[in-house]
Amino acid sequence: MRIKKRPWAKELYENNQDFYQKFPENLKGNWQNYFENSAPIELEIGSGKGGFITQLAKKEPKKNFIAMEINEMALAFLLRKQIANPLPNLRLVIGNAHEIERYFTMGEIANIYLNFSDPWPKKRHAKRRLTSPEFLKKYQNILQKGGKIHFKTDNENLFAYSVKAIANESNLFLNYLTFDLHHSEYSEENIVTEYEQKFSKNGSRIFMLEAQYLRRC
Amino acid sequence: MRIKKRPWAKELYENNQDFYQKFPENLKGNWQNYFENSAPIELEIGSGKGGFITQLAKKEPKKNFIAMEINEMALAFLLRKQIANPLPNLRLVIGNAHEIERYFTMGEIANIYLNFSDPWPKKRHAKRRLTSPEFLKKYQNILQKGGKIHFKTDNENLFAYSVKAIANESNLFLNYLTFDLHHSEYSEENIVTEYEQKFSKNGSRIFMLEAQYLRRC
Repeated sequence: MRIKKRPWAKELYENNQDFYQKFPENLKGNWQNYFENSAPIELEIGSGKGGFITQLAKKEPKKNFIAMEINEMALAFLLRKQIANPLPNLRLVIGNAHEIERYFTMGEIANIYLNFSDPWPKKRHAKRRLTSPEFLKKYQNILQKGGKIHFKTDNENLFAYSVKAIANESNLFLNYLTFDLHHSEYSEENIVTEYEQKFSKNGSRIFMLEAQYLRRC
Repeated sequence: MRIKKRPWAKELYENNQDFYQKFPENLKGNWQNYFENSAPIELEIGSGKGGFITQLAKKEPKKNFIAMEINEMALAFLLRKQIANPLPNLRLVIGNAHEIERYFTMGEIANIYLNFSDPWPKKRHAKRRLTSPEFLKKYQNILQKGGKIHFKTDNENLFAYSVKAIANESNLFLNYLTFDLHHSEYSEENIVTEYEQKFSKNGSRIFMLEAQYLRRC
């Protein structure tokens, strides 16, 4: 997501350092204490402006949520919302998906959400896709046994790539997949993101899958 | 495929017993001799009237093809064509997919084709779907190492089911998949079946995948 610089963002970050984590590695193994409860912790990687995770955190007040985003300008929108109207079960993290094993210890995360991740269409950038075998391995390393990865995209090629990575190069179990989320049995419980609304209005189909961390063989 | 009885079919079968195999189990382990060459043998399960396999056999004259169909009335159309204008690299088999391990020995088949197989939408009929884990196991038992299963369908639910079966309950490698064959990079080499033409004209998307028999773990 390309977002232009917001002059208000810098000050917002400086004046509200308790509202986000810039060094999540400092909390590794200690996230449960940080949330001050024993509820499961769910992680969205690439939260953008936070529309999805905010809705989810409101819908599931008994669970903990982490909104992780590398782009500070995007996350600033969520930070502003969170300051104005704090959701107690939501934490903001400025972080890089490549580094999640530095941020979270084994089994610390209950579920992972990936929404409309960058498709990185060029083959030489395949490793940057958030569903590459390398990333799937990282997710398995921070997920608890039985933990799930929820993934949706409007990009057909990224979806096919992701299904193959899960099928061929992971220990994840493919729980379900749909090639047209909005006309599927999962549409009712689906939380629509900003992007999703836009893409869907343009007639794009939304693909979704859920993979679960269970050893297969 | 529901096909009404054809009065001409019975006589055709009676008078042309050299043109088809009604007891394929008699050829188990001996198919290569039956073809009188050493070229790879490819099998279509559920050939229907044979439109697909005929085109393929013409396109690939150096390979051997078996059109297998349980419905004698459907296969009669292919038999009639084969008598009028015999393709030397094509053989017809009246056979039941459940029994393929009785018909073929380990590694006897190079590739398998499944085109627009019956979706058996009811859950209690799932085992009848030609991409159920039970069938995939049978395919692995007759395929040579590196052999491929080519599958296409217009049925979204059957496709999702098939992808899950391959990912979760087989030793097959998912080589590729597409959710819209006719607008994909595979459209040019695609052989269009009778059904495919009809479905596609009605605006249905065609799903396709290729899975390969390689031990994964």
